[in-house]
Amino acid sequence: MASQEIDALTSALARLPGFGPRSARRAVLHLVKKREGALAPLRAALVAVEERLATCGICGNVDTTDPCGICTDPRRDDRALCVVEDVSDLWALDRSRLFPGRFHVLGGRLSALEGIRPEDLAIDSLLARVAGGGVDEVVLAMNATLEGQTTAHYLAERLEKFPVRLTQLAHGLPVGGELDYLDEGTLAQALRARRPVA
Amino acid sequence: MASQEIDALTSALARLPGFGPRSARRAVLHLVKKREGALAPLRAALVAVEERLATCGICGNVDTTDPCGICTDPRRDDRALCVVEDVSDLWALDRSRLFPGRFHVLGGRLSALEGIRPEDLAIDSLLARVAGGGVDEVVLAMNATLEGQTTAHYLAERLEKFPVRLTQLAHGLPVGGELDYLDEGTLAQALRARRPVA
Repeated sequence: MASQEIDALTSALARLPGFGPRSARRAVLHLVKKREGALAPLRAALVAVEERLATCGICGNVDTTDPCGICTDPRRDDRALCVVEDVSDLWALDRSRLFPGRFHVLGGRLSALEGIRPEDLAIDSLLARVAGGGVDEVVLAMNATLEGQTTAHYLAERLEKFPVRLTQLAHGLPVGGELDYLDEGTLAQALRARRPVA
Repeated sequence: MASQEIDALTSALARLPGFGPRSARRAVLHLVKKREGALAPLRAALVAVEERLATCGICGNVDTTDPCGICTDPRRDDRALCVVEDVSDLWALDRSRLFPGRFHVLGGRLSALEGIRPEDLAIDSLLARVAGGGVDEVVLAMNATLEGQTTAHYLAERLEKFPVRLTQLAHGLPVGGELDYLDEGTLAQALRARRPVA
């Protein structure tokens, strides 16, 4: 019944993560009912992002400038470099506002299963950045998955020859985590890394 | 950290029903990573809908043409008119493909609480359509809420003088509904409207 244009919008929205056909329909209805208040701003925001979207040539972040806002921010500390698997990880860490340094996005993780090899990731550019000097610490902020940790080990080997401190994120209980509900792997990590009470 | 443009897109998406700040961020990330495959089609679909969006002058449906696709469809039966509260109800009924007639959108329901009176709804245009003749049956497809049913009763009174059959949607068990989990109101309706076993 709905016109071709409305159907096309519904299916474009339905392909977003977190959306399905039903919620996309609800969103489209909201958009067509609030044309000025919702449809126009969303269209303008999409157009603006699409026009200016760029992948940072230095770190691999996605931003509307190249180099990105993080690489060009003069308040950031060049001496600390945080290596992440994906842009989403960079955004998540950056939201915490706790890491004052720069980032480097690998663009994935090593995976024998998916056939992802070191040359498929932005490892050469990482080594070049570290070899360029001025970096004291490289944080290997891979996901706490088997493949993430394999990638971290591989990077640690490749970075060994440089005079930098290699660190990784702490493993343990998440905030609010109840022992009873946590998996054994997390409990084992938390126990192994236990610290004296301050 | 994210640029102004990306932030604007995130908040425009976060205001859609079914989306919050977190899922909007995930969707934006998906969009910026799949520029050709996701961002461009969504932008194009939004622009197309925005350019051609129109409210049907006959029934109140939202479509990309005025009169809308339903009002202009020659295969539909002019003799049956289904009155709904909102465009979303029209779309939901139309998706079922079981109603072959035309629709009329009131644009809301009578509500003493929200101060919505008969003159705030598209009731005059409904009466004019029925007075125009050619309509045999008016289905009062209001929501099964107190306000929806109040609206249906009000419309029934206003339509009484016309030689049309007034009907309403059946109330009862939803498909897959388990007695144990249904509210008493629904059970009472289902029992009251019980039918002989075929």
